[in-house]
Amino acid sequence: MPSAKYTDLVEKLPASVPFVGPEAQERTRGGEFAARLGANENVFGPSPKAIKAMSDAASGVWMYGDPESHDLRHALAQHHGIPTENIMIGEGIDALLGYLVRMFITQGDKVVTSAGAYPTFNYHVDGFGGDLVKIPYHNDHEDLPALLAKAKEVGAKLVYFANPDNPMGTTSKGTDIEAALDDIPDGCLLILDEAYVEFAPFDACPNIPIEQENVIRMRTFSKAYGMAGARVGYAMAEADLITGFNKIRNHFGMCRISQAGALAALADTDYLNQTIENIDQARIRIAEIAKNHGLNSLPSATNFVAIDCGEDGDFARAVLTEVVAAGVFVRMPFVAPQDRCIRISCGRPQDLDIFEKAFGPALALARRKRA
Amino acid sequence: MPSAKYTDLVEKLPASVPFVGPEAQERTRGGEFAARLGANENVFGPSPKAIKAMSDAASGVWMYGDPESHDLRHALAQHHGIPTENIMIGEGIDALLGYLVRMFITQGDKVVTSAGAYPTFNYHVDGFGGDLVKIPYHNDHEDLPALLAKAKEVGAKLVYFANPDNPMGTTSKGTDIEAALDDIPDGCLLILDEAYVEFAPFDACPNIPIEQENVIRMRTFSKAYGMAGARVGYAMAEADLITGFNKIRNHFGMCRISQAGALAALADTDYLNQTIENIDQARIRIAEIAKNHGLNSLPSATNFVAIDCGEDGDFARAVLTEVVAAGVFVRMPFVAPQDRCIRISCGRPQDLDIFEKAFGPALALARRKRA
Repeated sequence: MPSAKYTDLVEKLPASVPFVGPEAQERTRGGEFAARLGANENVFGPSPKAIKAMSDAASGVWMYGDPESHDLRHALAQHHGIPTENIMIGEGIDALLGYLVRMFITQGDKVVTSAGAYPTFNYHVDGFGGDLVKIPYHNDHEDLPALLAKAKEVGAKLVYFANPDNPMGTTSKGTDIEAALDDIPDGCLLILDEAYVEFAPFDACPNIPIEQENVIRMRTFSKAYGMAGARVGYAMAEADLITGFNKIRNHFGMCRISQAGALAALADTDYLNQTIENIDQARIRIAEIAKNHGLNSLPSATNFVAIDCGEDGDFARAVLTEVVAAGVFVRMPFVAPQDRCIRISCGRPQDLDIFEKAFGPALALARRKRA
Repeated sequence: MPSAKYTDLVEKLPASVPFVGPEAQERTRGGEFAARLGANENVFGPSPKAIKAMSDAASGVWMYGDPESHDLRHALAQHHGIPTENIMIGEGIDALLGYLVRMFITQGDKVVTSAGAYPTFNYHVDGFGGDLVKIPYHNDHEDLPALLAKAKEVGAKLVYFANPDNPMGTTSKGTDIEAALDDIPDGCLLILDEAYVEFAPFDACPNIPIEQENVIRMRTFSKAYGMAGARVGYAMAEADLITGFNKIRNHFGMCRISQAGALAALADTDYLNQTIENIDQARIRIAEIAKNHGLNSLPSATNFVAIDCGEDGDFARAVLTEVVAAGVFVRMPFVAPQDRCIRISCGRPQDLDIFEKAFGPALALARRKRA
């Protein structure tokens, strides 16, 4: 036991991890996965220009990164056509969500999210003593009007809404989101997590004035830009809120190599477009694999596809267990009825070959165990 | 103004940064510094093997880093001859200090440090509402017995003690630290920040059983290993306390490239020894530069040297301003009487040539303004 007492809040928290990493699973099973399709990582990888920029930056890593991430913020401002003062760079969306929760949530404050939505957000809310109120998905979609109605009912300070959604891959229309924004209650801030938005149809992205004070948008280089391990995310919001991060953030927290990589990745539009095309093809392929086994899959606006295993959560978990045992890292939704699905990240053709080979026997085994 | 209210604690915090980065200063002055000797970065850079490991890891950055940093933790355990369960890896000591403060400090809790010691630690304590109690340096040394006596007097939960010290570069003897540990009061945890310990004489490092529950040691790859921009630090403590970090840390916060770089850097003992030799030479050179201008410098156990400008803080600030204006990034202590000094990081010979060229005229200018 530590000699000092934890705070009352921390004392009650479990020592947990929102997700067990694939490396830990590999150590347990005693071998590497043949395909890594469980964490919605982008197997197509970063732009060669980003790889070169990171390699070139390695020898300069004796220098701390610029705490203002000036160059990257400027490039993003130009990219989005907004002022620099409306952008905050952070160590992935995970870190930005943690900072945001810390800024607004103290013990007993209400926070609304969807049951089965991003666990790491919930981890941060628990970590600052917030009171999570969860509402169900509606037809496998996060339901913004219902989230905002619940926020009004309980007096929530924060609402979390991912569009496109993870883990189902579904999306709302931008115009529907815009229409719902009027219902954000007073005193409430909407967190719009757009980690996967580059993969979505253009009409999934709402048009929200950057000056709007009750919305903050989160973006990342982890998904479309293929740089999950670099830990670069950013928030876009009105300038006062962005400045608020400077009250508490780890100013020198950004990896200098990652800053350089993100800057180069952002500039390589051709490669981004190629990635999006690759992901499109992989989504089609995963849907075909499901169909070939007599199963449905959900239309996806992300770099993963939820395959509906056609029965309940126990069955899908059995399928998942067999797929993983066959050497393919995949994950699945945690909450019913979404946990009837397993979630397959959009790998390269060779990755999906491996998944396909594992999937049929896994289904058969799960069905035999069921019978 | 954000639509939601900040917590009462965060509302009162300023939007601040513990240090302004050199890049921001370069943007203001409209040109790059000719020498970068202000942040105790290690200009000799990382091991070529670490550079290669980071370059090689760049293409694999599509994968999240292992949240357990398993390989690096195991290598460090072997390096220090302690179990893996006693080591926590984090995004630099800065992040680990932030986590540690969050684990133990809530509003009004007392924390003891030295006046003029590491500002980022104070930033974290302020950020969680702790009540900082500061005691003066003793002969330019952080004074562990006095820190612990003050901790007992005020009922502190945390005491911060850096050995070697920053910004003065002085060190205590390991045996003196060992002798003081019996005086850590009940309910108090001593944070022993050893960021610079690889540069110190062997007898500066205390022998403390890893099971001891009232001490946590902090180490980093930012200094001797030349990887400040990679953001890799680690804590060593009894296993329960290490597990406590898992209650709140950003599990997926580590850059995968940085993990690979640290692992390779740790293995290259020859390069580390060469770096330490290079730093030794630079310390001698900086002391000579001071002496050639009729000034004293403090014996240093770190990769920087404090030059005593021989007058008060206003004078040293004037000297610093002129050195910076001449294109050399340096910093200085914030608090009297330590602020009679300016602090020069141990650069390469060519960096110190540039500093030397700037220093004489800067002194002369400051003296003329004074007259």
